[in-house]
Amino acid sequence: MSFSYGKRIKVTIFGQSHSPAIGVSIDGIPSGLEIDLDELKKFLQRRAPGRDAYSTTRTEKDEVEIISGFKENKNLSSKILTCGAPLTAIIRNTDARSSDYEKYADVPRPSHSDYAAFAKYGASHDIRGGGAFSGRMTAPLCIAGGIFLQLLKQKNIFIAAHIAQIGEVKDTDFDPVNVNKGDFALLEKTDFPVLDKTAGEKMLKAIEEAKTEGDSLGGIIECAAIGLPAGIGEPMFEGIENTLAQIIFAIPAVKGLEFGNGFAGSALKGSQNNDSFFIKDGKVKTRTNNHGGILGGISSGMPLLFRAAFKPTPSIAGEQDSVSLSTLTEVKLSITGRHDPCIVPRAVPCVEAATAIALYDALLGV
Amino acid sequence: MSFSYGKRIKVTIFGQSHSPAIGVSIDGIPSGLEIDLDELKKFLQRRAPGRDAYSTTRTEKDEVEIISGFKENKNLSSKILTCGAPLTAIIRNTDARSSDYEKYADVPRPSHSDYAAFAKYGASHDIRGGGAFSGRMTAPLCIAGGIFLQLLKQKNIFIAAHIAQIGEVKDTDFDPVNVNKGDFALLEKTDFPVLDKTAGEKMLKAIEEAKTEGDSLGGIIECAAIGLPAGIGEPMFEGIENTLAQIIFAIPAVKGLEFGNGFAGSALKGSQNNDSFFIKDGKVKTRTNNHGGILGGISSGMPLLFRAAFKPTPSIAGEQDSVSLSTLTEVKLSITGRHDPCIVPRAVPCVEAATAIALYDALLGV
Amino acid sequence: MSFSYGKRIKVTIFGQSHSPAIGVSIDGIPSGLEIDLDELKKFLQRRAPGRDAYSTTRTEKDEVEIISGFKENKNLSSKILTCGAPLTAIIRNTDARSSDYEKYADVPRPSHSDYAAFAKYGASHDIRGGGAFSGRMTAPLCIAGGIFLQLLKQKNIFIAAHIAQIGEVKDTDFDPVNVNKGDFALLEKTDFPVLDKTAGEKMLKAIEEAKTEGDSLGGIIECAAIGLPAGIGEPMFEGIENTLAQIIFAIPAVKGLEFGNGFAGSALKGSQNNDSFFIKDGKVKTRTNNHGGILGGISSGMPLLFRAAFKPTPSIAGEQDSVSLSTLTEVKLSITGRHDPCIVPRAVPCVEAATAIALYDALLGV
Amino acid sequence: MSFSYGKRIKVTIFGQSHSPAIGVSIDGIPSGLEIDLDELKKFLQRRAPGRDAYSTTRTEKDEVEIISGFKENKNLSSKILTCGAPLTAIIRNTDARSSDYEKYADVPRPSHSDYAAFAKYGASHDIRGGGAFSGRMTAPLCIAGGIFLQLLKQKNIFIAAHIAQIGEVKDTDFDPVNVNKGDFALLEKTDFPVLDKTAGEKMLKAIEEAKTEGDSLGGIIECAAIGLPAGIGEPMFEGIENTLAQIIFAIPAVKGLEFGNGFAGSALKGSQNNDSFFIKDGKVKTRTNNHGGILGGISSGMPLLFRAAFKPTPSIAGEQDSVSLSTLTEVKLSITGRHDPCIVPRAVPCVEAATAIALYDALLGV
Repeated sequence: MSFSYGKRIKVTIFGQSHSPAIGVSIDGIPSGLEIDLDELKKFLQRRAPGRDAYSTTRTEKDEVEIISGFKENKNLSSKILTCGAPLTAIIRNTDARSSDYEKYADVPRPSHSDYAAFAKYGASHDIRGGGAFSGRMTAPLCIAGGIFLQLLKQKNIFIAAHIAQIGEVKDTDFDPVNVNKGDFALLEKTDFPVLDKTAGEKMLKAIEEAKTEGDSLGGIIECAAIGLPAGIGEPMFEGIENTLAQIIFAIPAVKGLEFGNGFAGSALKGSQNNDSFFIKDGKVKTRTNNHGGILGGISSGMPLLFRAAFKPTPSIAGEQDSVSLSTLTEVKLSITGRHDPCIVPRAVPCVEAATAIALYDALLGV
Repeated sequence: MSFSYGKRIKVTIFGQSHSPAIGVSIDGIPSGLEIDLDELKKFLQRRAPGRDAYSTTRTEKDEVEIISGFKENKNLSSKILTCGAPLTAIIRNTDARSSDYEKYADVPRPSHSDYAAFAKYGASHDIRGGGAFSGRMTAPLCIAGGIFLQLLKQKNIFIAAHIAQIGEVKDTDFDPVNVNKGDFALLEKTDFPVLDKTAGEKMLKAIEEAKTEGDSLGGIIECAAIGLPAGIGEPMFEGIENTLAQIIFAIPAVKGLEFGNGFAGSALKGSQNNDSFFIKDGKVKTRTNNHGGILGGISSGMPLLFRAAFKPTPSIAGEQDSVSLSTLTEVKLSITGRHDPCIVPRAVPCVEAATAIALYDALLGV
Repeated sequence: MSFSYGKRIKVTIFGQSHSPAIGVSIDGIPSGLEIDLDELKKFLQRRAPGRDAYSTTRTEKDEVEIISGFKENKNLSSKILTCGAPLTAIIRNTDARSSDYEKYADVPRPSHSDYAAFAKYGASHDIRGGGAFSGRMTAPLCIAGGIFLQLLKQKNIFIAAHIAQIGEVKDTDFDPVNVNKGDFALLEKTDFPVLDKTAGEKMLKAIEEAKTEGDSLGGIIECAAIGLPAGIGEPMFEGIENTLAQIIFAIPAVKGLEFGNGFAGSALKGSQNNDSFFIKDGKVKTRTNNHGGILGGISSGMPLLFRAAFKPTPSIAGEQDSVSLSTLTEVKLSITGRHDPCIVPRAVPCVEAATAIALYDALLGV
Repeated sequence: MSFSYGKRIKVTIFGQSHSPAIGVSIDGIPSGLEIDLDELKKFLQRRAPGRDAYSTTRTEKDEVEIISGFKENKNLSSKILTCGAPLTAIIRNTDARSSDYEKYADVPRPSHSDYAAFAKYGASHDIRGGGAFSGRMTAPLCIAGGIFLQLLKQKNIFIAAHIAQIGEVKDTDFDPVNVNKGDFALLEKTDFPVLDKTAGEKMLKAIEEAKTEGDSLGGIIECAAIGLPAGIGEPMFEGIENTLAQIIFAIPAVKGLEFGNGFAGSALKGSQNNDSFFIKDGKVKTRTNNHGGILGGISSGMPLLFRAAFKPTPSIAGEQDSVSLSTLTEVKLSITGRHDPCIVPRAVPCVEAATAIALYDALLGV
């Protein structure tokens, strides 16, 4: 059951990088809600490979077919209505070159899941393209998340993320107290979502350089949600931090997560870190937002803010030290095939998608 | 169901800071396992309040009464055997001074859960001592964790944590590749668990100063697990990172979590960050451990390593800006009562406990 | 996690027949709801042993102590308010005579759980009083159920059950279309809940005879719920029939369950069994109620009706054939100790309690 | 999450009767297990419509496409190996005649799910073919179950069911103590699974008559599992009876379930109903099997035996009383379209499938 997420909705993902298809089934969406398929398609294109310097040359058309859970809207062809039954979508895998991967079954790629998967599943594990551990599995995650992003917008809750850092180049952060909703629209439209264009250009240059060197880069994504009312989430094990963490760490390459000022906040004193309350337009607000919109696991009504750290893509061009699992001897490995020199730009919509899923689930708990 | 954790075992926590009792019920422990109650008691004393400069003066005896799930071992009075039924333990709350808290029901303490809990539960919320959001709820977490630490030791899996940072003072880190098991025994015995004694003294001094100033400090805890075989954990939503995150964020004040080199790793290149494989004593190992023992959510056989960031205790002495929830006006608040100037030292066994629970659950999935 | 029930609420039961205490923790009750402890006590007395010919002579005072999850109502001492945190209650086991049970650890009692529990848990299983398999574990079930019965009444949903059959003596059934709410009040007050007093007297006589013979009787309980709106429940695996079945089969000795006309209905033709719709007071009703208030797993707005079959108490006085588990030889067994010649009367509040838990959980899903 | 079943495996079903496709994703199958697709196909044909007097004339080819979770076995084309990732299969809906159903959206068919679904989902509910409440949804259930039946056979656990009753015609029962494994092979091969051929002919005649009259019949299915070791299952809410009940009641039209002698047993005395233990070939057995192989929710090592009651198909030819949901007036309804006069024969493999899923899940808990 490790491929299902959610307490009130249940998002079940299936497929492997090179299986006939991948997909997702979403149980628990209320009936009668409208989903705009064109808008969903646009969202998915933000994650799609093959667009740029930073992404793999694998070119999947990624055509989403929704196979259950809806009624057609006869007048507006791009819009469907949920009917209460699980909404299921599949994407065919068409550009899979499996032969690239045969050698990794015996000689695991450093810092990939290959060896851990072998230890768990044995020789029957589907290593091709990383199998079910592949970044490709974020496509169905984004289908579910893209749908929930729309449903949240219908409730005036908006989510956006940007590339906060690539390698050592940093973007401007969101203003934690007054997250600029105008930025959200801009981020949604751009191929390379940053708040500071100059930083963005430096990042692209760094990626280009890494690519040329056969190397790779990691980075940090910052995500914000605005419009979330106070009082959402549960205490202890089902707090928004807990449930967001469970889904954010499902995005391949995430190795860290912090809410509000996170690790930096742990070096402050209480008098510096505490967020004073005040009243604005008859509502309780805080003057600062070091808590990132969550207190005791529950939303405070301030913007939700968190940052996720991504390790550099482990697939690099140079020769690396590995081992043969069959002979338990040390061998050299050179990785071929198509790989993103930096997956962070394409991970931005994944982080938004994951956040939308977690927040929609939390909202149903009220 | 937000007070239950686990997929194969189920740890259910109950109580509030000032309710008649707090406790935990643990379902799914195999039968016939031995638990040493003296060892459990010693473990719980590491979390107990009232011992030092850095802890609250609330002095609870914290006597644990196990009310179900065991058979007495007639010969060894301090040891019990699990019988397969849920093991349940309670602790009476005896030193609760509820009158301290009445005012916070209307005037929430900045950066505490008070306001978020009010938004969720309304006026019926039990604000006394933070209610179910209190750090006191880590006592039942530690009962469960203390038991699983023992059961893991029986499988040669060892967990230890230390204070990696308080304010701006840093301790030495664990050697990520060769975590020193000798350190574990030392950490278990000390009141103030650090690897570098000099750093520890500086930390204590910083806490003493903060206390004198009526201020508070946060910090970072680093935790390691050794002996975990490769192949433990599940992909995607039930990886060790995901499930550990779900429980670590249940410890009050945690605002960040990173595995291996985490946030720092996201600034590296793939060629710097990748952990090469090699063979040692016939086993697959990595030369570095930037991945923190987890690849694709699944254990690699290398030491599990993670760091959790704790915000400074929000209860400080000075006057703070808050609001009256009944009148929606701005008011000043001075917090009285007993509070830890820094909860990090007492949180160390909590992190170990949470890790033990998560890993035992993962191990049952094999 | 087999001791927890519920999707939106989580009822977690703990304890064994002869452990220091038994209890229940209920997570997910909304905050601010009123619970009348006197009413709860009265409900629990309906299940309590030691009152009559048909019940064991074990006399437990069964004093319920609520240890978390509430705020006291200062004006009305018998009423408490839920506060949002898990409501936990314990009962001490005081009249346990464990020595009666030692022999059954090696020589299992026919048709008891002893042998199956041994096969599962081995020698460490707590056999005393049936351990966690004991009918005594329905006391915490009734605490939870008694609370939810009150909360359902606050929503104008009423549940009552009666003894439909003991041995071969049958009571009158509820009128499936017009369940008489007046009957509910009467059933609640009586020690021996039947609709037809004459049938009740015959049942009591049959129990008395069985007791005299050292034998035992089983029976059938019919349960009804009125006031449940249409549209409650989920399709497929979480229908009201599915979730009720999961909890009803948790009551020891239940071996069958049927909704509406159940097994009898399977011998009818569609033209006989179908329940025609009509309009009454502007609402959709059915003229007959062979479907027992559930269609497709979801409530139809008609009374919920089901019947549960209880096997006769396996503890009987005469010598029986058993085996020694240590020597795998056949031996004779005579059961001593205190046992109900018929547990059906005391199971009536248990069935009501289980139904209340399942329906409250389903209602939160709307 | 109502479309997912299982604690250790997770079977997630999706689709509606007239959606583009239906399917199932199965998470938690161990890797490296062999599945014979030809054998699976044969199993599914037992449930397929369009074969006989008793089944609908809807003729779906029901071609199963497995889209994830496997590695091809290069030598044996009909056999695949599980790889650890969720195994997902879809079936296209090709012979859907949706126009038949439009009227039922306003005028619900008596004893169908139409009205309850309307009450739950409102006008957006997909009424066509019964939507997600359709008997067609047992096709994906049978895919999952057919796979688990194979995996259980590999562990020497065998499951078979037969038609125990149709209308008032009864088949011979399984011998509860010595279930004849030879019967299992016969039942698997026949189109109309009964133990007594003469009874079977009478049943077919009764169905033929009902069809001619435009009426329908219900019935009872008896199911047995042999080879299940003692000690499988969990106490209280996760007993085999509880978990089997949760899945059996997911098969449309099931209204009753009993284990062992079930309802009949509740009329017996303890001295009649108790199953004595004895030793046979060094193993603990019982001389009778009134307990149906389950004691305290846990398997006893004796054959598992249960019976499920199916109501008659609600779709019948004659005019029936219904209501218009839009005008809340009483109207007459005549049902057209294709329907099984008796779904019991086709439900036999569904009961086997459900049992296989539940038992495999329970076995993983050991």
